[in-house]
Amino acid sequence: MRFIIQHTDPKSSARAGVIHTDHGDIETPIFMPVGTVGAVKAVHIKNVREDIKAQIILGNTYHLYLRPGLEVLENAGGLHRFNGWDKPILTDSGGYQVFSLSGRRKINAEEGVWFQSHIDGSRHLFSPEKVMDIERSIGADIVMSFDECTPYPCDHAYAEQSMKITHGWLERCCKRFDETEPKYGYSQTLFPIVQGSVFPELRKRSAEFISSMNREGNAIGGVSVGEPTELMYEITELCCQLLPKDKPRYLMGVGTPANIIEGISMGVDMFDCVMPTRNGRNGMIFTWDGILNMRNEKWKNDFTPIDANSELFADREYTRAYLRHMYVADEILGPMIGSIHNLHFYLDLVKTARKHIANGTFASWKNEILPRISQRL
Amino acid sequence: MRFIIQHTDPKSSARAGVIHTDHGDIETPIFMPVGTVGAVKAVHIKNVREDIKAQIILGNTYHLYLRPGLEVLENAGGLHRFNGWDKPILTDSGGYQVFSLSGRRKINAEEGVWFQSHIDGSRHLFSPEKVMDIERSIGADIVMSFDECTPYPCDHAYAEQSMKITHGWLERCCKRFDETEPKYGYSQTLFPIVQGSVFPELRKRSAEFISSMNREGNAIGGVSVGEPTELMYEITELCCQLLPKDKPRYLMGVGTPANIIEGISMGVDMFDCVMPTRNGRNGMIFTWDGILNMRNEKWKNDFTPIDANSELFADREYTRAYLRHMYVADEILGPMIGSIHNLHFYLDLVKTARKHIANGTFASWKNEILPRISQRL
Repeated sequence: MRFIIQHTDPKSSARAGVIHTDHGDIETPIFMPVGTVGAVKAVHIKNVREDIKAQIILGNTYHLYLRPGLEVLENAGGLHRFNGWDKPILTDSGGYQVFSLSGRRKINAEEGVWFQSHIDGSRHLFSPEKVMDIERSIGADIVMSFDECTPYPCDHAYAEQSMKITHGWLERCCKRFDETEPKYGYSQTLFPIVQGSVFPELRKRSAEFISSMNREGNAIGGVSVGEPTELMYEITELCCQLLPKDKPRYLMGVGTPANIIEGISMGVDMFDCVMPTRNGRNGMIFTWDGILNMRNEKWKNDFTPIDANSELFADREYTRAYLRHMYVADEILGPMIGSIHNLHFYLDLVKTARKHIANGTFASWKNEILPRISQRL
Repeated sequence: MRFIIQHTDPKSSARAGVIHTDHGDIETPIFMPVGTVGAVKAVHIKNVREDIKAQIILGNTYHLYLRPGLEVLENAGGLHRFNGWDKPILTDSGGYQVFSLSGRRKINAEEGVWFQSHIDGSRHLFSPEKVMDIERSIGADIVMSFDECTPYPCDHAYAEQSMKITHGWLERCCKRFDETEPKYGYSQTLFPIVQGSVFPELRKRSAEFISSMNREGNAIGGVSVGEPTELMYEITELCCQLLPKDKPRYLMGVGTPANIIEGISMGVDMFDCVMPTRNGRNGMIFTWDGILNMRNEKWKNDFTPIDANSELFADREYTRAYLRHMYVADEILGPMIGSIHNLHFYLDLVKTARKHIANGTFASWKNEILPRISQRL
């Protein structure tokens, strides 16, 4: 993997760059659609490629490990071959899901985490070594180290203890990763994750430790877990200032369109979030003019396009009235349109931000766009 | 509407023709995807047009009347404008849904049917006149007369009484339809429906009465409601022999791929059925090699295409193993792939049948294909 910074914004920490991988280039800043079990929910892979124009998608290690399982993924020749997506993929480490989804779990620094599958209650162990092996079997281009994602709120003592465990696991992840080879003939790279909850002192220690590992990219985890937005921005900014400038910075699980613009301004290069797909399934539509609750009665007779500023086929072909009808009548097409629309908007948003960084107009564009995309219509 | 027969099969009653409508031509025999509330379930309208290559879709009067309702449909300028489908549409009369879906209902020849909405329990009246008015507001190219679809089994006395009511309603439908004008600047045509349950004598009387109304096309209703397949074939063949040769014959709600091939061979020109979409959502996949239950363990490591004989993007991009994983993991993409695949197969099936009718090879093709497409893989 190689990362080249092409432009830096004079009035903020925003930058535009490109990440070269064996599955092609990723132009940053980028948003990565979440493909939980190997599918971006409610969107055909052809549309992810040709219409949303995603450059990298995310897979969840926890979900893929449980279903379809490593045997199938290895037999297929890795996730790219399994789901037909031949551009870059990033996999998380399963840390977040183990703590948020699974049943009774037991964590200890030595072994890792024993957890119960949310599907059938079966017991499994995720250790740093095992997660690295799993991510080798999945075969993503960028793999995340195994961490504990602390909940919010969480006291200082727990956050510090958890951070120390995460750091220990990182060393073990790096060791295992560096001792093993990719399985499918293209290279993989490992990103470590800054933790430390909302405590600046812990975040500082964690960012410094993570930086010292000298991997090809770094991530900020443990944000967007319920803390106030201002606190998230504060922590993100702090981490961005400490993480090396010449490597991609990935802000995990963030966020709203406004969160993403703010993150870019702080120097974040990569984002992922379930919001465009999850909210799209529920009828919340993000547009250049603001946020629409499509179930609202007010769209009943609105025969204008979903987003007049969009070039997406779905935005041209369907009206707000029709989309509202789809949600109200519980038609699968509602979530399908909502998901493809929102993802297209998110990709359009980061692409436009990138253009403004290249033109040196990012700061003024950000000020103009933020109130508009954040308002409720 | 004009119907031209282009080819007739020398060894069966199959024929290939074309129906001209103000929204374009329909090449028969044709299968019509069901678009219940104005959407073909789980398929983008763009895919219905460009990939499935549907030539006409069906809308359900009962569903459209309840949601989005006539006010919205009229404000939109009719169903074509509302859902963005600019090719022909056919609407059923709501008769079937009133009897199968709604709550307490009261039928009398004079008034029509009082029924309760399956959505909110509200009371509504469907009379022949009202249904014609509703179908004018929806604006389909082909509209069906209001009938009672008898259940199976049903005794002779009930079937006869019901048939008489249906005939009386047909006269009222024709009167109202002929006294009113289309609302959106293109012409509409009314098809009557043969009823009479499984009793040949009633079917004969009904087919003769229906034929005497001299509409531009005719339908066979009250089949595929639970009766044995052989009985359905017997009734269909009888009706086809009695209905005028020079007008399209529409077999309502039928059926499996094999049912459709048999129907074509008896002289049926038009079909609709929820089977490709409903079964597609549930994981039953129809292919040129037979029927697959995609949830079956046996596909777990089958990385061959869903249907090697298909040109559909979804059949080329996804494997059987991947599609199985989508269903097992309850991903929306499973029903999406299943629906578009099955509809594409159904349209491919009638298109291929049409080609063989034109070439004079329909009978031998039918004998060859029937066991293959009917077998369980």
